[in-house]
Amino acid sequence: MPTRALARSVQLPKKLLWRFLKSKDCSVKVSDLYAMKFKATATAEDITGEVKNSEHFRYAEETKLAWDEGRLSADITEEQRKLQEADLVIFQFPMYWFTVPAILKGWFDRVLTLGFAYTKEKRYSNGIFKKTKALLSFTTGSQETMFSPTGINGDMNVTLWPLQNGILHYCGFQVLAPQIFWAPADATPEGRSAMLAAWNTRLQGLLDEKPLFYAPMDCFDCESFQLKPESVEKCVKEFGPTAGTHCGKPLPLITR
Amino acid sequence: MPTRALARSVQLPKKLLWRFLKSKDCSVKVSDLYAMKFKATATAEDITGEVKNSEHFRYAEETKLAWDEGRLSADITEEQRKLQEADLVIFQFPMYWFTVPAILKGWFDRVLTLGFAYTKEKRYSNGIFKKTKALLSFTTGSQETMFSPTGINGDMNVTLWPLQNGILHYCGFQVLAPQIFWAPADATPEGRSAMLAAWNTRLQGLLDEKPLFYAPMDCFDCESFQLKPESVEKCVKEFGPTAGTHCGKPLPLITR
Repeated sequence: MPTRALARSVQLPKKLLWRFLKSKDCSVKVSDLYAMKFKATATAEDITGEVKNSEHFRYAEETKLAWDEGRLSADITEEQRKLQEADLVIFQFPMYWFTVPAILKGWFDRVLTLGFAYTKEKRYSNGIFKKTKALLSFTTGSQETMFSPTGINGDMNVTLWPLQNGILHYCGFQVLAPQIFWAPADATPEGRSAMLAAWNTRLQGLLDEKPLFYAPMDCFDCESFQLKPESVEKCVKEFGPTAGTHCGKPLPLITR
Repeated sequence: MPTRALARSVQLPKKLLWRFLKSKDCSVKVSDLYAMKFKATATAEDITGEVKNSEHFRYAEETKLAWDEGRLSADITEEQRKLQEADLVIFQFPMYWFTVPAILKGWFDRVLTLGFAYTKEKRYSNGIFKKTKALLSFTTGSQETMFSPTGINGDMNVTLWPLQNGILHYCGFQVLAPQIFWAPADATPEGRSAMLAAWNTRLQGLLDEKPLFYAPMDCFDCESFQLKPESVEKCVKEFGPTAGTHCGKPLPLITR
């Protein structure tokens, strides 16, 4: 579900990706959010017909009901349909303020509705999209050295936690390691070509990659959603990039 | 700059806050983003008149130029004016998908423009808003136990890093500890009253609170923006909630 890249330099990863996927006989659907003028703000207008409680409007509950009854707005329904058909979802965006641009945040807020994308029972490793792979592919304004455990912007692992764990893994997606294009606007043409060549190489084996590790649901107490005492060591040992559930231990480094 | 809280229960912190600030003879400006139908998506329409390079449009550079020449759209200019006049900025929102709702992300994307809110020279502890305090005040859907170093949603410290360090501190703001209203929708009326009472107590001393610690700019090498070797120990020792620049050490706990 790529957003329109705002700078021409970051259009290239999308073109490359498209060519690659087509060459593999993949069916490719693109949601170009800027071109679609995708509505970013979650409001009661996302529901066709009456809402249950307009005075005390609760977005999650109201959209759950509307989804049950087929009364979500057409733009949301269309995106949900694409998502259900996908085996792999690539979110292509320029990083804005350490996360996705508002238009893509709006896609998450509006498309990943309660009932459709998650329920209290179906989330994380029991999540609805557990058969689907997803990855974040993005360009940065900062150089790579700034985003490290000793860099001023901090560990990229930490920056991506809310997106990768909190959104993608929460809905069950198998999260592949992020594809990061470091500061292409400041790179030489050769530097940009090298970035694309690396992406092209990665693409050859992308679908066989092992997803990032997150502690499975059965490691957590089903009341408090805290790691069970017997699971702490196991999870620390198998620690992938779970920057959030770190158990007070030093965070692992990104391995890609 | 509170957003309109979507559930009535989360309107209460705002009313309480308003009454408190008025009683202290503060001048209070509210930006109710939903009521304003605030435009969330950053586009070329945010600039009045010609853009410099429409074919290869770069938002940061184009808005910098427009800001220099007084050609940013009226809604952005108005929010920038409020921000310049403020001593304290409180962002009140319901947490959506581990961060702010898209409409507030759009406020960050569009209002905090290059030149106005930051430059390469003026950021972090040298940031433009270094005399202004800011804090995130928000409601969650999850219980507190889920957001811990052993919880399934992970350490709240990590979740807030992109917002607190990457947006607020990046622009220089003195970031006060977050005010978190845990799962008010699932709380009893007494539980909600207790949350408000705690906020009211905190408000009495809010302006005297010590901001969160972030390593100052002179601890970083001015080329790579990595901590200078001699600064690592100092920063680890003084470690506040800098989940990102963790130097491979265990993360500190939130102390509030």
